[in-house]
Amino acid sequence: MENFNFYVPTTVHFGKGQIENLASSIKQFGGSKVMLAYGGGSIKKNGIYDTVTSELKKADIPFVDCDGIKPNPPVADVRKGIQIYRDNSCDFILAVGGGSTIDAAKAMAAGVCYDGDVMDLMADGKGEITAAAPLASVLTMAGTGSELDLGGVITGEVNHKKHTIMHPLLYPKFSILDPTFSFSVPEKHSMAGSFDALDHLLECYFIAGSESTDVQNMMNEGLMRSIIKNAPKVLANPEDYDARANIMWASSMALASFQFAVGKKGSNWPMHAMGHELSSLYDMTHGVTLALIAPSYLAYTLEKAPEYTWLFANFARNVFGVVQGDDALAAKEGIAKVKEFADTINMPKNLKEAGVEEGKLEYLAEKATEWGNIGALCPIEKEDALEIYKRAFL
Amino acid sequence: MENFNFYVPTTVHFGKGQIENLASSIKQFGGSKVMLAYGGGSIKKNGIYDTVTSELKKADIPFVDCDGIKPNPPVADVRKGIQIYRDNSCDFILAVGGGSTIDAAKAMAAGVCYDGDVMDLMADGKGEITAAAPLASVLTMAGTGSELDLGGVITGEVNHKKHTIMHPLLYPKFSILDPTFSFSVPEKHSMAGSFDALDHLLECYFIAGSESTDVQNMMNEGLMRSIIKNAPKVLANPEDYDARANIMWASSMALASFQFAVGKKGSNWPMHAMGHELSSLYDMTHGVTLALIAPSYLAYTLEKAPEYTWLFANFARNVFGVVQGDDALAAKEGIAKVKEFADTINMPKNLKEAGVEEGKLEYLAEKATEWGNIGALCPIEKEDALEIYKRAFL
Repeated sequence: MENFNFYVPTTVHFGKGQIENLASSIKQFGGSKVMLAYGGGSIKKNGIYDTVTSELKKADIPFVDCDGIKPNPPVADVRKGIQIYRDNSCDFILAVGGGSTIDAAKAMAAGVCYDGDVMDLMADGKGEITAAAPLASVLTMAGTGSELDLGGVITGEVNHKKHTIMHPLLYPKFSILDPTFSFSVPEKHSMAGSFDALDHLLECYFIAGSESTDVQNMMNEGLMRSIIKNAPKVLANPEDYDARANIMWASSMALASFQFAVGKKGSNWPMHAMGHELSSLYDMTHGVTLALIAPSYLAYTLEKAPEYTWLFANFARNVFGVVQGDDALAAKEGIAKVKEFADTINMPKNLKEAGVEEGKLEYLAEKATEWGNIGALCPIEKEDALEIYKRAFL
Repeated sequence: MENFNFYVPTTVHFGKGQIENLASSIKQFGGSKVMLAYGGGSIKKNGIYDTVTSELKKADIPFVDCDGIKPNPPVADVRKGIQIYRDNSCDFILAVGGGSTIDAAKAMAAGVCYDGDVMDLMADGKGEITAAAPLASVLTMAGTGSELDLGGVITGEVNHKKHTIMHPLLYPKFSILDPTFSFSVPEKHSMAGSFDALDHLLECYFIAGSESTDVQNMMNEGLMRSIIKNAPKVLANPEDYDARANIMWASSMALASFQFAVGKKGSNWPMHAMGHELSSLYDMTHGVTLALIAPSYLAYTLEKAPEYTWLFANFARNVFGVVQGDDALAAKEGIAKVKEFADTINMPKNLKEAGVEEGKLEYLAEKATEWGNIGALCPIEKEDALEIYKRAFL
């Protein structure tokens, strides 16, 4: 097992009615004037905005709105939030929404404490995060795990490239996870979120060094099973509390400080890298891009890294209950099950159906690998990425 | 799923050589004079004491020793530590050892900030923890998970009763987990520690409310599998780094903020309650007591709570790979596997072999239930506890 550090300081308040902890928690972390960050207004329609603001009003906590944060949040939205925070002398950021809103809020939290442009603070930027405003989240859509991790993904201006921002100061101080808040999330986004969480687990599972990380692998297998069991229940009944609760908690656990990747070799999260390019070019929902890429990526990787056939076979048996005794056959069966699961939860069948143009595949492969190899079990250079996109096309 | 809160603020530095983070981490948390808490001196024999103190000396951090903390730590040891801390104007406690040492250090951390006697601060005491000295751990023996949780168990003076101390302020600020530090732990204690970790997971698995907690159950199943796989490897080769690493990380994860019990109904940890009485009366190793109690407890519970047969069957299939299709038969097979595992890692076969007197069983049952029902899936009153002790006797 490789050396690692592990740190997840966020306090989680999980369950129905946990919003009652909102005001006291904000005060506990020194918040006296809150910037409320949220998206396109669905929280106004479903009543969550009123619920949150009434808690703030009851506790005499003044707040100012930063609304309209878009999915795949563009840096312009982040800059707007930084301006609002400064103009109103806020001292706390409360993100109410899903991964995009929380990711944007993290970039705002870092940006308000930095003199230059917030793009400097991205992982590939020239600046350094040395301070951040306290932030917290009220989660309304499960999937990204941003509520229990230290990072976010922001879309830059050049080619809509996705950039990562990451720092321990960006952990939410607390996150309120009320499964009922996700009842009204539309089917497509609920299912895309479920696949996103599953894909975090796939990224962490299929990394070199997994020979020695039984704890991480075996817990991960269990968590994957819980998503595969519960996502179809949410699809069948969006107000199934326990199914929503399992998906919400699974999403948080899937990413919590990358607990399932620790102790392994490094990874550039190849499926995410390839999916991000689809989102950049077509503004596609993140989880949908992962469902499109994962089966082809896994099949390609199995071919290129046959020494990890045992890992794919373990996955097939322990996640999907495949009983095939031959490792190579079991491995393939497991990958077929991933595709089957994506179909079950109504993800688009292939890139073509999702509206991707065949002529763009080369460009996508080029961009996904522009900083070099993105592989986890085998190298993934441009030609490899292109082959994966092609297999995912039809 | 029941509502819950989740909070694990401890920073973990995991792996070979992580002791290099010791001094900087102490300073990060404001430590300028350290009380070094440890046990009977094994750390002096195996070199860990020298390794730790040389890190402190290199960084010019003065320290004072609080040695001789006994297993099942008696409150007298805690009081001694409090005195040493005060006499030497320390501002940081570093526990170097296993669960007993870390538990005692937690009680000291609370005690030094309290005017009255530290026994007041136990869960059944009259005082309240409102402050605690910062503490950290260097783990030398895996099992209890104390390095990543907020509680400890202290042996009182009256009847050697075990008392719990628990507060979020008692999380270690950081824990250094170097699997090589556990290489020299004697076989019996290594195996008892493995069973202790497994038993934490059993306690969390078999709780009412498990119908709705797929995430917790399924991750738990995976973690149990990792212990069952790796403990025999440690037995075969005490210097198998990866096996030690998996057991060490499994032990921490098993208890981390009781992550596998969250969302379920409450439990009084019946196997621990019954095991504690064995430790109180015979000063037996904690993990050994659990190995003695678990199979009988589980079998008794299955009989009394047949409505949870499905949970026992899931356990059998997903943890031990039992293929039996009939739930009732699978359930029994799973429990037999627990006993088989205890035998495999050389735990005593029964209470008699462990030196328990048959005439004491009634007393043990009386004490284990003196505050009432300790059950998790079915009520466990005195008569039930007696029956379980009797079944475990021969």
